[in-house]
Amino acid sequence: MQTDEYWMRFALRQALKAIGATSPNPMVGAVIVKNNRLIASGYHHKAGMPHAEIEALNATEDAKGATMYVTLEPCNHYGRTPPCTAAIAASGIKRAVIAARDPNPEAAGGIERLKKAGIEVKVGVCEKEARKINEVFITNVTKRRPFVVMKAATTLDGQIATSTGSSNWVTGDISRQYTKRLRSRYDSILIGANTARSDNPTLLPYKKSGKFYRIVFDSRLTLGYPNLLSNPENLIIFCDEKIDNSRLKLIDKRVIIKKVKSKNGKLDISEVLEALFKMGIMSVFVEGGANIHKSFLDERLYDKAFIFVAPKFLGGKGIPLFHGKGVDFMKDAIALKETVFRKIGKDLVISGYFDV
Amino acid sequence: MQTDEYWMRFALRQALKAIGATSPNPMVGAVIVKNNRLIASGYHHKAGMPHAEIEALNATEDAKGATMYVTLEPCNHYGRTPPCTAAIAASGIKRAVIAARDPNPEAAGGIERLKKAGIEVKVGVCEKEARKINEVFITNVTKRRPFVVMKAATTLDGQIATSTGSSNWVTGDISRQYTKRLRSRYDSILIGANTARSDNPTLLPYKKSGKFYRIVFDSRLTLGYPNLLSNPENLIIFCDEKIDNSRLKLIDKRVIIKKVKSKNGKLDISEVLEALFKMGIMSVFVEGGANIHKSFLDERLYDKAFIFVAPKFLGGKGIPLFHGKGVDFMKDAIALKETVFRKIGKDLVISGYFDV
Repeated sequence: MQTDEYWMRFALRQALKAIGATSPNPMVGAVIVKNNRLIASGYHHKAGMPHAEIEALNATEDAKGATMYVTLEPCNHYGRTPPCTAAIAASGIKRAVIAARDPNPEAAGGIERLKKAGIEVKVGVCEKEARKINEVFITNVTKRRPFVVMKAATTLDGQIATSTGSSNWVTGDISRQYTKRLRSRYDSILIGANTARSDNPTLLPYKKSGKFYRIVFDSRLTLGYPNLLSNPENLIIFCDEKIDNSRLKLIDKRVIIKKVKSKNGKLDISEVLEALFKMGIMSVFVEGGANIHKSFLDERLYDKAFIFVAPKFLGGKGIPLFHGKGVDFMKDAIALKETVFRKIGKDLVISGYFDV
Repeated sequence: MQTDEYWMRFALRQALKAIGATSPNPMVGAVIVKNNRLIASGYHHKAGMPHAEIEALNATEDAKGATMYVTLEPCNHYGRTPPCTAAIAASGIKRAVIAARDPNPEAAGGIERLKKAGIEVKVGVCEKEARKINEVFITNVTKRRPFVVMKAATTLDGQIATSTGSSNWVTGDISRQYTKRLRSRYDSILIGANTARSDNPTLLPYKKSGKFYRIVFDSRLTLGYPNLLSNPENLIIFCDEKIDNSRLKLIDKRVIIKKVKSKNGKLDISEVLEALFKMGIMSVFVEGGANIHKSFLDERLYDKAFIFVAPKFLGGKGIPLFHGKGVDFMKDAIALKETVFRKIGKDLVISGYFDV
């Protein structure tokens, strides 16, 4: 007899098949088990497609008396699809095991609805894992803004480039491949104009199934990053609201130009995130450089960090991870929590969460 | 039937019982095995005490026909003790398995001597591990200078203190305890006068069995570190050769003052290491700060590094790991090799070797 945790882990693996593809929806997996045997499974592929529960129910005609394991509370509202709770109740499912409640108040109420239909409900199995795979979604619904991820690659003495701007490459091949895979988990990637000019990247994602935007912070609209500009689809440039419209004529019309307030040459990040959220961009992978990282850190708008550390030294001044002034006292340093250390090739990646 | 590797690992563990205690000698372990059974073991406790082979031979009267496993080539010269090769030959040992050849030309020749005595000799079992435990000794005999270890604790943005000098504490309790244990592996600890003044440490070691010196680089002899000066035994201060002798009168006579050349306010590190080597100080654990690390790095006199990284950010300018100018191109960064990453409490320690 397998435990509830066993089947819920199976459901979580189903959910993860759609990593990076479901935005703005959460990833959800569902499995149906009868007499300790798997009889159906499903997951939410992308927004507008059936929910995981429906996919699983459609895969069997034998759900009567079975147990359904689902990683997120089944929805109880008419969105793009009818409520899953009704379909579950109609199927004859006897017992429902749910990992996490839906943080979205619009969608919640599913548990109560199932109970009213006479279904035995158990909540909280693998809840931590379920919340973790949907950290983007949870931030979206609780904070009404995109989930923001800091990514940087530094030497062991904390530099992202030499004083001459040389940064090819801080980390090794394997780290850089891994970064490309990380990018594809999120809806967008964001860099500053300095980085755009010095690296001249394309920032095209690696095997990205859902939408993917590339965002440049270029307050003075200085441009000068031909590889980005020559791939104008899904390219967003944020600039100062005072930039004259005549200057936009030089840019391919497919490029999305967004004007926001700025202060001391720095764009208003809250306004940027609000604009992105309105566009349905639910997560932002911020790759720097030092000015951008500093702005997000100071506004406490970073949720998560991936810091790649290469075991080598510049041996003195280069370009640091954050420009500007640091805290005055060590006790006030900004800590990451729930950190994970991973060796990756010759490098190390440290990931963790900010207290926000 | 146990393998030669099995018994050699046992011998290596014997050797390590004297970690930090044998300087200027290497750590050596020996075991005697007969009919696949351990009949005796020994290790070198400290300089002047019997060698490992003799300790093992003294522990049995039944060595005839047995195999001896020893982590380092038995000595063939009269030092403070008679040659081990003669004792081994006299004991009736039939076979000798040796991990590593003695890098010291004075002591070498043991293998040939044993062979001449009709003993079957196998060399190179666990050689890498055996060389590793004696990396200090090998550096001493091949480079005629102390083994030099860099130790630093930085934030994830590469800062060892805030701009106001606050450094209490970068890392957590467990890292700091581990640092104390690391110190006790080496013959001395070295810090700069700035660090001595700002931290006012005692630098007394943790359970240190052998000798232990505390060294301060104080080129202008500004002093101002009472906790060190009030423990004057085994305290060495290096200052500029031009410092007037009258200024030494203020210092406790037990403090060892060494005058060396200096250039642009920086002491001549080669001269320092030569002086320490002459004093029989075979290893130096250098704890910074940023000027000291820069000097050793630039002179390529660091052999090994332990860098503790705390998963937190100052978020801008503080005191970096190295003062001064870094390399101009990322490809010229100074890499660590044979790196080991270890989680320690909430922190991470990265150790590795410099190409020197």
